[in-house]
Amino acid sequence: MRLYIGLVHYPVYNKNRQIIASCITNLDLHDISRVAKTYGVKRFHVITPVEDQQEIARRIIRHWKNGYGAIYNRDRKDAIELIEITSEIDESIDMINKEEGKQPLIIATDASPVKEQRLSYSEARKMLENGIPAFLIFGTAWGLSKSLINRADFLLDPVYGPTNYNHLSVRCAVAIILDRLAGKF
Amino acid sequence: MRLYIGLVHYPVYNKNRQIIASCITNLDLHDISRVAKTYGVKRFHVITPVEDQQEIARRIIRHWKNGYGAIYNRDRKDAIELIEITSEIDESIDMINKEEGKQPLIIATDASPVKEQRLSYSEARKMLENGIPAFLIFGTAWGLSKSLINRADFLLDPVYGPTNYNHLSVRCAVAIILDRLAGKF
Repeated sequence: MRLYIGLVHYPVYNKNRQIIASCITNLDLHDISRVAKTYGVKRFHVITPVEDQQEIARRIIRHWKNGYGAIYNRDRKDAIELIEITSEIDESIDMINKEEGKQPLIIATDASPVKEQRLSYSEARKMLENGIPAFLIFGTAWGLSKSLINRADFLLDPVYGPTNYNHLSVRCAVAIILDRLAGKF
Repeated sequence: MRLYIGLVHYPVYNKNRQIIASCITNLDLHDISRVAKTYGVKRFHVITPVEDQQEIARRIIRHWKNGYGAIYNRDRKDAIELIEITSEIDESIDMINKEEGKQPLIIATDASPVKEQRLSYSEARKMLENGIPAFLIFGTAWGLSKSLINRADFLLDPVYGPTNYNHLSVRCAVAIILDRLAGKF
């Protein structure tokens, strides 16, 4: 599997659908890197142009990679090591391109039930099984900006259970989506 | 579906496999109640015998149910309303018994690949589709005590992706497991 994931902190929406840069959430880095490690994701990109925020992320990573955290909990170290910090999505795409020798397919995620053509989970799973490099991007706050969704190659189906409620945290959404794409059960 | 979930804070293990009472984690209540709402879970039991910890949980719930949070974010209110705080698992079982007029099946979860007979996701899904009341319990910290696992009717399969790594946060584990039991895709 040549799967990469990105957690986007800019450009995303706030509650009033204005474009903002959201803050790094400590638990996002932990939960999502552990999910990434479980499902064989190659790199987990944490994307923010705000330098102070990048520094916060770097400090968390240092603690678990080289500091006391690395001794205290080896499993966390193994997961946290998957994290790559970048300033914008193009920087991530360039890195993936270099690593894979090929432009990755960009697959956006969005909880809202927009009407455009969406990629189903079985189609996405098949692409990954066929070894196509893919970059799956998730928005923090109230979700990825329209501009990012428009430049993606595909927009993945939203996550639904048997209800109409679909307000998951990004941590839980990443977990469910990666299980649908690469879970074994 | 007559599904209930429980997040157990005692008796659970710490890193050194001693029995402890773990602390309430704010984000567990938010993330897991939103997952529960998404998948049509009837009640989400937060189980701790520690009264201070129960009070912390009650304050979080009050804020989102009746305080400023209820105005700020209606979707969170709808999810948080599913939470029930109890002192121990027997109190939860009694409540479910009263609500369903029947003892629920107790299904324990555990990440470790123990050898005992496990319940598969498709078997569990079938039980739920057949309307059997079930109480799915999750451990915080390093997992449910052996005593709780032994008194459960079933032990569910652990969550795996294509790797051997299975150190998920309880938030992400609940999300993946409920999607496997009640997701639509």
